[in-house]
Amino acid sequence: MDTIKNRRTIRKYKQQDIPAEVLNQLLEEAFRASTMGNMQLYSVVVTRSEEMKRKLAPAHFCQPMVTTAPVVLTFCADFNRFSKWCRQRKADPGYDNFLSFMNAASDALLVTQNFCTLAEAAGLGICYLGTTIYNPDQIVDILQLPELVVPVATITVGYPDECPAQTDRLPLEGILHEETYRDYSAEDIDRIYAVKEALPENKQFVELNHTETLAQIFTDIRYKKADNEAMSEVLKEVLKKQFHIG
Amino acid sequence: MDTIKNRRTIRKYKQQDIPAEVLNQLLEEAFRASTMGNMQLYSVVVTRSEEMKRKLAPAHFCQPMVTTAPVVLTFCADFNRFSKWCRQRKADPGYDNFLSFMNAASDALLVTQNFCTLAEAAGLGICYLGTTIYNPDQIVDILQLPELVVPVATITVGYPDECPAQTDRLPLEGILHEETYRDYSAEDIDRIYAVKEALPENKQFVELNHTETLAQIFTDIRYKKADNEAMSEVLKEVLKKQFHIG
Repeated sequence: MDTIKNRRTIRKYKQQDIPAEVLNQLLEEAFRASTMGNMQLYSVVVTRSEEMKRKLAPAHFCQPMVTTAPVVLTFCADFNRFSKWCRQRKADPGYDNFLSFMNAASDALLVTQNFCTLAEAAGLGICYLGTTIYNPDQIVDILQLPELVVPVATITVGYPDECPAQTDRLPLEGILHEETYRDYSAEDIDRIYAVKEALPENKQFVELNHTETLAQIFTDIRYKKADNEAMSEVLKEVLKKQFHIG
Repeated sequence: MDTIKNRRTIRKYKQQDIPAEVLNQLLEEAFRASTMGNMQLYSVVVTRSEEMKRKLAPAHFCQPMVTTAPVVLTFCADFNRFSKWCRQRKADPGYDNFLSFMNAASDALLVTQNFCTLAEAAGLGICYLGTTIYNPDQIVDILQLPELVVPVATITVGYPDECPAQTDRLPLEGILHEETYRDYSAEDIDRIYAVKEALPENKQFVELNHTETLAQIFTDIRYKKADNEAMSEVLKEVLKKQFHIG
């Protein structure tokens, strides 16, 4: 599986459409992923129109991929379709709760990753937009998602027009635990993050941002406590509205 | 990618160990999945010992795969390692909130699916255990997960000792939406679920369970409202304890 080993996120795409039959085949194969009780608790909204891309862009902090990619896919946790089926078959669905949301979100994320793998194997490039759960309220409105449907991931897709360097990853020993979780000592942390901190691009990143450490770029600039807390409230509000989670 | 297209969940495994170097290579490649800001917000606990499998089994409702598979992997959302790094680098982490949990859970689930794809391509069989988020409190205790670590998926892995029939999937049109979500009419639901309802094994399933419809097996037997609500409370308690989410 060299396509997974050698993958890199692609943010620049050729001005070339993805034929519907190509996209549909990739999605259909992606839906072979494991799914809770074979309920397939997800929906995918396909955005191709310029107008809809322009509407979605602000929800993704106007990252250029949203308007420049030929296709934008929004993967949603979806208990709406299944619940409708239940009601139509004299069955009383009880899926407006936190566990059911997490079941559906899990189903949707497995399918998202499966799609990314298949798309890359077919020569396409993808970018995963984490912003989907930052501004889910906007996306619910724009895509007209009904109750029991929540967007959990957005993927921009197109034929690659760049080949960036692969990003670093932590050493395997920093992620794996044998039998039980072995919590990290100060020495473990130093060792695990040593390569990342020594990378020239990260050193330059620290200089450019005038911080003392690389970690401060994350805590003080990119992923700030106050922002995380404010966006948590938005996400909770969306879950309250869409899944009746109090 | 015929391995994805032809995949099936495997619940029976040969009595044959997975060499550590095989497993580690698959995991290392799986970690190439997209990750929020390259923070790699996950950990994987590898269970090989009989004793630990026996301890984990009840958390997974004693499904036999847990004790019969050579390897059980618990994929965890993990902001502990990253936060420790921050504190050790004069940075103040603000990741004990719901958004950060969802970021980490997303990272962990993408890696889970990537691992499954790679394992299957290498001739292994996997089973995804959705029970992980049903009894996360037990798993936190057994695997000794510290604060900011929550289990989100468990995969049993081994060399296949069965080749079950592929399960059905809904037709593509039942999952895709063009530009905006087109909510389902009664006719849509009938059409989308027609093949599933007509399958001989599902008809037999209804007979065996003495229900009137297939949907009732889900709502009245397999995934009941009262159970979902009780397990939602457990999951929320775990998030309160592990991520300080109120």
